[in-house]
Amino acid sequence: MLDQFKIVLSHTTHPGNIGAAARAMKVMGLSQFALVNPSKFPSAEATERASKASDILANATVYTDIHQAIADCRLVVGASVRTRTLPSRLVTPRELVSIIKQNLENTPIAILFGTENSGLTNDELHLCHYQVYIPTNPDYSSLNLASAVQLLSYELRLAFSNMQQLPETRVIANEQVVSREQLNGLLQHFEKVMTATGYLNPGHRKQIDNRMSRLFSKATITESENRLLRGFLSSIENMISRSID
Amino acid sequence: MLDQFKIVLSHTTHPGNIGAAARAMKVMGLSQFALVNPSKFPSAEATERASKASDILANATVYTDIHQAIADCRLVVGASVRTRTLPSRLVTPRELVSIIKQNLENTPIAILFGTENSGLTNDELHLCHYQVYIPTNPDYSSLNLASAVQLLSYELRLAFSNMQQLPETRVIANEQVVSREQLNGLLQHFEKVMTATGYLNPGHRKQIDNRMSRLFSKATITESENRLLRGFLSSIENMISRSID
Repeated sequence: MLDQFKIVLSHTTHPGNIGAAARAMKVMGLSQFALVNPSKFPSAEATERASKASDILANATVYTDIHQAIADCRLVVGASVRTRTLPSRLVTPRELVSIIKQNLENTPIAILFGTENSGLTNDELHLCHYQVYIPTNPDYSSLNLASAVQLLSYELRLAFSNMQQLPETRVIANEQVVSREQLNGLLQHFEKVMTATGYLNPGHRKQIDNRMSRLFSKATITESENRLLRGFLSSIENMISRSID
Repeated sequence: MLDQFKIVLSHTTHPGNIGAAARAMKVMGLSQFALVNPSKFPSAEATERASKASDILANATVYTDIHQAIADCRLVVGASVRTRTLPSRLVTPRELVSIIKQNLENTPIAILFGTENSGLTNDELHLCHYQVYIPTNPDYSSLNLASAVQLLSYELRLAFSNMQQLPETRVIANEQVVSREQLNGLLQHFEKVMTATGYLNPGHRKQIDNRMSRLFSKATITESENRLLRGFLSSIENMISRSID
């Protein structure tokens, strides 16, 4: 699904940004890459900044005319962090993915990024159906070009990758969280030991019980942690029974 | 609100990443920056990559012990793109901001980033209440360090900045979208001209009317666009009346 998106960099000045953009794309699973009149490409600096994403650079298509770069696309979106009189509709990245999800799944879509210093030209903006605005600090909106590619690629991955967002090792390996029954057993053990040590007097038993329950519910403790705590409690009980003997 | 977040880079190898991280933070409105045993800092490369965010670098605190860097924080979150046996709870960036919104508004929170090649150490992960996992391409998860800072700073800005996400110039300057009444007037004008040219015959009038209505509703046309279309339609009418004379 991410192959429907083509990242188009127009008139990029710094070759390093082209390489960093390729890496930013690949790490989010995007691969369609077009360059319009880059000031220098290919370049050693781009290859270095691409890290192991040099395949994205190798497969990039270079154009002299932006119309050719977007000829096969059915939606054109301009990326911007600046505000000005707008020839196209302005949306946030999340509004954009919502619009695409509603009507434009599997449609070839170009996302245009202008030159580093001044962004997209008016002529380029007039090619865009939408302008996607990345929210930034109004006192310092100097978002790096490759960072802008990174942020939008990330939003596209979240919305259009079929991969689950979290790896399957989400539950700590070989460590199940305890069942509520096990947790109740632990809490009763605490109550028993707290009574034996004299900490828990009947007047505030309910309050302490509630706090302990809340504490260990929040902690979502695992079976090994449960065994650790039960062992500790048993050691206290053993110590008490020895001292009584 | 964004001042509650402290970005902590541990054992950063490349000075350029420190500068790029400072820029990434400032563009999203973050400012608390701590460095634990950077291999080189300050450095000309960091300053260059920081662009105009050199104030973030100048105010960064350098520590030799990560415990000191996070001593004043009440929640510690480790940033990761890799999966392994996990000593802390794993959440997505959006789950993280949701957790913070529920319980931890205005709480000092540290977000830890490990060294470029291998990420956070096990000792560092054991300091973390949560581990935030940035979804990446499983075939190439080599997210640049400063890009990871950029993505999480962006998520924090979206969630915790009081600024609206879109600038007030969202509506094209001095160009109101037409009212439904104006739109109906335009559609009737089209129908009249289409009838005059012979395009619209009674048999498919309803179908054409519906399509035109859908088309111009989707376009959310402005008053100046409306005037342009009405002018064009009038010019057709004038041409027809001249040719009849």
